[in-house]
Amino acid sequence: MRNKDEAVVIFSGGQDSTTCLLWAKKNYKKVYAISFDYNQRHKKELDCAKEICKELNVEHHILDMDLLNQLAPNSLTRTDIKVDTSAPTDGTPPNSFVDGRNMVFILFAAIFAKQRKVSDIITGVSQSDFSGYPDCRDVFIKSMNVTLNLAMEFEFNIITPLMWIDKEETWELADKLGGFELVRNKTLTCYNGIEGDGCGNCPACKLRKRGLEAYLEKKTSVHN
Amino acid sequence: MRNKDEAVVIFSGGQDSTTCLLWAKKNYKKVYAISFDYNQRHKKELDCAKEICKELNVEHHILDMDLLNQLAPNSLTRTDIKVDTSAPTDGTPPNSFVDGRNMVFILFAAIFAKQRKVSDIITGVSQSDFSGYPDCRDVFIKSMNVTLNLAMEFEFNIITPLMWIDKEETWELADKLGGFELVRNKTLTCYNGIEGDGCGNCPACKLRKRGLEAYLEKKTSVHN
Repeated sequence: MRNKDEAVVIFSGGQDSTTCLLWAKKNYKKVYAISFDYNQRHKKELDCAKEICKELNVEHHILDMDLLNQLAPNSLTRTDIKVDTSAPTDGTPPNSFVDGRNMVFILFAAIFAKQRKVSDIITGVSQSDFSGYPDCRDVFIKSMNVTLNLAMEFEFNIITPLMWIDKEETWELADKLGGFELVRNKTLTCYNGIEGDGCGNCPACKLRKRGLEAYLEKKTSVHN
Repeated sequence: MRNKDEAVVIFSGGQDSTTCLLWAKKNYKKVYAISFDYNQRHKKELDCAKEICKELNVEHHILDMDLLNQLAPNSLTRTDIKVDTSAPTDGTPPNSFVDGRNMVFILFAAIFAKQRKVSDIITGVSQSDFSGYPDCRDVFIKSMNVTLNLAMEFEFNIITPLMWIDKEETWELADKLGGFELVRNKTLTCYNGIEGDGCGNCPACKLRKRGLEAYLEKKTSVHN
C-alpha cells in the first residue's frame, strides 16, 4: 500500500528547500524535515532550519554528518579556507563543492524514510540554476531513484518540485503557497551567513536577488 | 586518463573481502583498504581487518560511520538485541540487516576513491549466497555504478570478483591467490565474533564451513 499521506523533505533552511517544505505541507498530512549537520561553515543555517520548522509546525530531525567533513574538507565545511565569492567563469563548481554530497543526503533521507514506511522524498534541487553540481541534474535524480529502489526493495518516489523552474518562479511558488515573507526573511542562502536578503554580493545572493526582483516586477505589472 | 594502477577495496576483515583484497593485490600496484566503524557488535572485526592489512602491507583507512548506528539500530550494531542465529525460513534477511548499508559503504568508498583519482572500487558482494540482501545483487551494483558516475561526473568502475561464485569457489580463489591460510585463520565471519573457523553454529559459520569442506574434498580428490 502506497503511503500518500507522508513525506520526507530534505531541508537546509535555504530558499529552495523552504519552498519545498511549504509545498509538502500543502500536499501531505504529515511532513518530516531532515537536515544534515556536517560542520558547515554557517551553523546559522541549522538555526534557521529549526526556526522555520517551529513556525510551520513540522517535525524536524538533524542528522550528524560529520563524516562528510572528515572525507571532503572544503570551503563550506572548513573555516580556514576562504570562500571564493566570485562565480567561476569556466563552468566548474565553486570551491564550496563537496563531491557527491547531495547523493549522500538523499541516501540517508531514504534510509530515514523507509524506517517510517514513507516513500515520498522531496528535494529542492534544480536543473535551471545548475551551477556545475552533477548531482542536482534530473538524470542523476532518476538514476538515484532506481538505485535506491533496488538497494532497499522499496518504492521510493523522489519528487523535485523545483527541477525545471528558475529563481523567479521559485519566488512565485513560495508566494502562491503563502510563504513569501517567511522565505524572504527567515531563510539563509548567502555564502557569508547573513539570513534574509543576505550580503548581496556572493553568487548565491546575486542569484536570489535577481529572481526576487524579476518576480516583484512581474507581480507589480500584473497588478497594475 | 584511466587509473589502472590503483584500487579501493571495501574491506570488513571477513572471508569475502579478504579474498578480494588478495585479488586486488595481484591486479594493482597500489591498493587502499577501507573499513567502516559503525559500532558493530564485534569490534574484533576491525581488529582482524587491521591485522590482515598489516600482514599484506596494505594502506588501511577506517571511516567513522556512527551515523548508520543512529539511523538503523539493529542486532549487529546494538548489543542489547540478541542475534537470531537461526536462518530465517521465509527468505527474509536475518535480523542483522541494516537497510541500504551496502549502498552507504559503496558511496563513501567512491567519495574516498575520487579524492585520490582512483576509479576502481572492489567489493566482495555475491549473488550466489544472496540471503535476502537486495543491495548485494548484480542489478543493484550496476545501477549504483551508473548513479555514482552521474553524481560525481567520474568513471567509477565497481568490480565484484565474487559476484557469481559460491563459497567453495571463494575458498579456491583464495588458495590460488596464495591466501588460504590467511583467510582460514585471520578472517572473521562468525556472527558470534569468533575468528577463523568461528562458532560453527551460526548461519555465517555454517555457510563458510560447508564451502570449505566442499573445497577441501575437491582439492583432495584432484590430488589423488
